[in-house]
Amino acid sequence: MGRWEPGARDRIADAALELFTEGGFAATTVPQITARAGLTTRTFFRHFADKRDVLFADEDEIPLAITGLLAVAPLSTPTIEVIGGGLRGLVSDYEPRRDQLRARLLIIQSDDSLRERYLRKLSVMSAAMVAGFRQRGTDGRVADVAAKIGSTLFGFAYDRWLATGETRSLSELIDETLDLFGSEFAASTAT
Amino acid sequence: MGRWEPGARDRIADAALELFTEGGFAATTVPQITARAGLTTRTFFRHFADKRDVLFADEDEIPLAITGLLAVAPLSTPTIEVIGGGLRGLVSDYEPRRDQLRARLLIIQSDDSLRERYLRKLSVMSAAMVAGFRQRGTDGRVADVAAKIGSTLFGFAYDRWLATGETRSLSELIDETLDLFGSEFAASTAT
Repeated sequence: MGRWEPGARDRIADAALELFTEGGFAATTVPQITARAGLTTRTFFRHFADKRDVLFADEDEIPLAITGLLAVAPLSTPTIEVIGGGLRGLVSDYEPRRDQLRARLLIIQSDDSLRERYLRKLSVMSAAMVAGFRQRGTDGRVADVAAKIGSTLFGFAYDRWLATGETRSLSELIDETLDLFGSEFAASTAT
Repeated sequence: MGRWEPGARDRIADAALELFTEGGFAATTVPQITARAGLTTRTFFRHFADKRDVLFADEDEIPLAITGLLAVAPLSTPTIEVIGGGLRGLVSDYEPRRDQLRARLLIIQSDDSLRERYLRKLSVMSAAMVAGFRQRGTDGRVADVAAKIGSTLFGFAYDRWLATGETRSLSELIDETLDLFGSEFAASTAT
């Protein structure tokens, strides 16, 4: 087996997700994962720190993407549109991976340490939103509120997207969430 | 020692918070708590299921209060004002207990199972908001979004209120949070 394995990272991730789903996260070992993927444990550890890392490492670049998406919008763009542009900019990273993300969510929900890590990840994404707003020159407290609202709206659309039986795309659900928010709060704050 | 102990519940809660702060949550036992409070373990278990319960049981009535506060606002009241009224209605439960809630938050943050329980509690509060909106006749998806926004705004003000060095009241911070939200999103959605 060569030192460089084409697609090793994805093969490990797919094998791990299958095994976690079949036998549970706690009971699955790294050698089982590498056996399923047809790779060595040495290769595993070139790509991931541990089996938990397999569930989270694929989105390491997203916080930076969020910060960039928010920072580049013209300064005249209203906050809700900056948020909307940022959320829509994330869609292409998620949309093709729906089945995988659904399976992952079930595994995360089954284990305390995974839920904890997932929440830390969400807080990193929220912090990236704050950073994106601050880079636009937004006042600190306003950036904090805007980031919280942006995270809440994304989380709302994302959770619906992964819900059992939901067939609409993440893009459609983000649009609907922004519409609901806009109609509800634009009308009320105008009075 | 009599069967009925005046103020037993508060004495247990105070003693527990002191001991958790001094020696850590995991190392503190129920007999230590009752010894500090000058009560029997029998009395402890008349009030609380276990030591973890001491940290959470004092707010059992809050979800019902939230649902009620939201449901009674006139139907013509704009959503953000319904939320604002609901949040301000909670202030009197929290305001006098700032030091206690700050100490409690540090303890919660020190322990995985406490963080988990705390998050469950937040989700119960969020579900109570959804129920409050639905009782107003609000459409399900709109109620969900409104409840998420309400929870987010309350959490934002609450976290700031308990932050080190913050001296303003929860009431002031809720007002400021609602103002920030209103100015940011009313302006943007009006375009």
